[in-house]
Amino acid sequence: MASSSGGAAADLEIKSETACFGGRLLKCVHQSKATKTQMTFTVFLPPAAASSAVPVLYYLSGLTCTDDNFIQKAGAQRIAALRGVALVAPDTSPRGAGVAGEDEGWDFGTGAGFYVDATEAGWKENYRMYAYVTEELPAAVAASFPAVDTSKASVCGHSMGGHGALVVAFRNPDKYRSVSAFSAICNPVECPWGKKAFSGYLGKDEAAWKEYDATELMRRDGPFPSLGKILLDQGSADNFLTAGQLIPEALVKACEDKGQPCEMRMQDGYDHSYFFISSFIEDHVSMHADRLLA
Amino acid sequence: MASSSGGAAADLEIKSETACFGGRLLKCVHQSKATKTQMTFTVFLPPAAASSAVPVLYYLSGLTCTDDNFIQKAGAQRIAALRGVALVAPDTSPRGAGVAGEDEGWDFGTGAGFYVDATEAGWKENYRMYAYVTEELPAAVAASFPAVDTSKASVCGHSMGGHGALVVAFRNPDKYRSVSAFSAICNPVECPWGKKAFSGYLGKDEAAWKEYDATELMRRDGPFPSLGKILLDQGSADNFLTAGQLIPEALVKACEDKGQPCEMRMQDGYDHSYFFISSFIEDHVSMHADRLLA
Repeated sequence: MASSSGGAAADLEIKSETACFGGRLLKCVHQSKATKTQMTFTVFLPPAAASSAVPVLYYLSGLTCTDDNFIQKAGAQRIAALRGVALVAPDTSPRGAGVAGEDEGWDFGTGAGFYVDATEAGWKENYRMYAYVTEELPAAVAASFPAVDTSKASVCGHSMGGHGALVVAFRNPDKYRSVSAFSAICNPVECPWGKKAFSGYLGKDEAAWKEYDATELMRRDGPFPSLGKILLDQGSADNFLTAGQLIPEALVKACEDKGQPCEMRMQDGYDHSYFFISSFIEDHVSMHADRLLA
Repeated sequence: MASSSGGAAADLEIKSETACFGGRLLKCVHQSKATKTQMTFTVFLPPAAASSAVPVLYYLSGLTCTDDNFIQKAGAQRIAALRGVALVAPDTSPRGAGVAGEDEGWDFGTGAGFYVDATEAGWKENYRMYAYVTEELPAAVAASFPAVDTSKASVCGHSMGGHGALVVAFRNPDKYRSVSAFSAICNPVECPWGKKAFSGYLGKDEAAWKEYDATELMRRDGPFPSLGKILLDQGSADNFLTAGQLIPEALVKACEDKGQPCEMRMQDGYDHSYFFISSFIEDHVSMHADRLLA
């Protein structure tokens, strides 16, 4: 596997490699210090990575997903190959941590890490997806794929991963050059999914919840001019929108109030699925590429 | 569901509808006379179908697949939307027919209909995917989606479905305007998958097998000038190629001998997966669209 465009560092195992749009798709497994479990992520190296450094777009998936959903269904590799951007898609939680109750619900525990660092007993040892995504994952990518310039990074996500993308960008506007999201959970402290996850991982103190709420972060710390314009796509026929799980209007209002450029596109008739993501992913990858390659 | 661009005929149930690339993606279920089971297929109606008739590209999937794999993973809807072509992706076999042994192997029975009309006892009542694909499916599409002009049809497929695409086109060059395939089983009478399937479905008389072998049909009945140029993509790192399951060289030789235009592209480093298909699907849909819209 040793090559200038991507051999694995000693602590990273390449589980599979596949040619894709002239580039290389690699499923990677490594032992995570953050989660104390094996973590899986997939990297797409565009053709340009064979001969020069390329920037990176992280993609954070939603509830129940693994690193596979985006890579298999979104169609992003085509545009990433064209633009010369690497893609990195991590898993959504630790797997097999053995925490009591982690497999009882589809929206909490396994597959539902919510990109927070848990502080509650039982969860705080393993459920540390915020540290994993913002620190350990970039370091692992940089160590094993020297062609990927992790100092030029942007982030995108879907649903729970849209929440994650917004939060990691708003808390680290120096680490990411742009952020976008599909069907994002924009104000988790106010929605059932967020309340369940945050009370479980972070406990009863709702002040701690606000550190992981995009709308609250924008209200308190925004604007984030270094992130440029935030791009949000939302389907009008998304059942989770009408169920009050996403609340994009709160984030849009906070951006307006703080003067943060934000383009919220309500896409008529689209649902919450990867068919929605695939229909508009080109706009997102292109926007990030414009920022990353500027 | 009644609309000029696609309401369901009385015997067809729309299980789901999803917006996708400005068009409509519909999962359909109907009772099949050919297989005597419920059959599922997915239709993609491009945006153009809302206002005018559009031609259709059938896609036949490989072993173990359902109607979902292509629709979720290949990225074809983007190009079909751009070109104004409908996509129709059927399932790969009857499901739950209750035939003894149909679930014992991954390469025979359920998920492995091989697009033949079985003649052997036990199988001949249900395993009639050739009749289903060439007759019943187009009739069902025409009846429920009047915006789809099934008189303008092309066919593409992958692996077992590449075999199916080639065979249905070579046996019906008046019904299809073009044919292409990824990683096709090109000479099934000479490969282990084909021998197992054909002996099981068609019995010991190998003369009957040749009616479903693309290379044999080309040798006997070719060329098929009405089909134009056949496009074949094959990955050089495809394990099934090196295992002797695909034998594309036999078909290429038969085409050469008969004067059939055929472009066989050996794609360096690609495997048998949908990442391979997604990397080159644009060329296939574009070639078919050129023929269908000429």
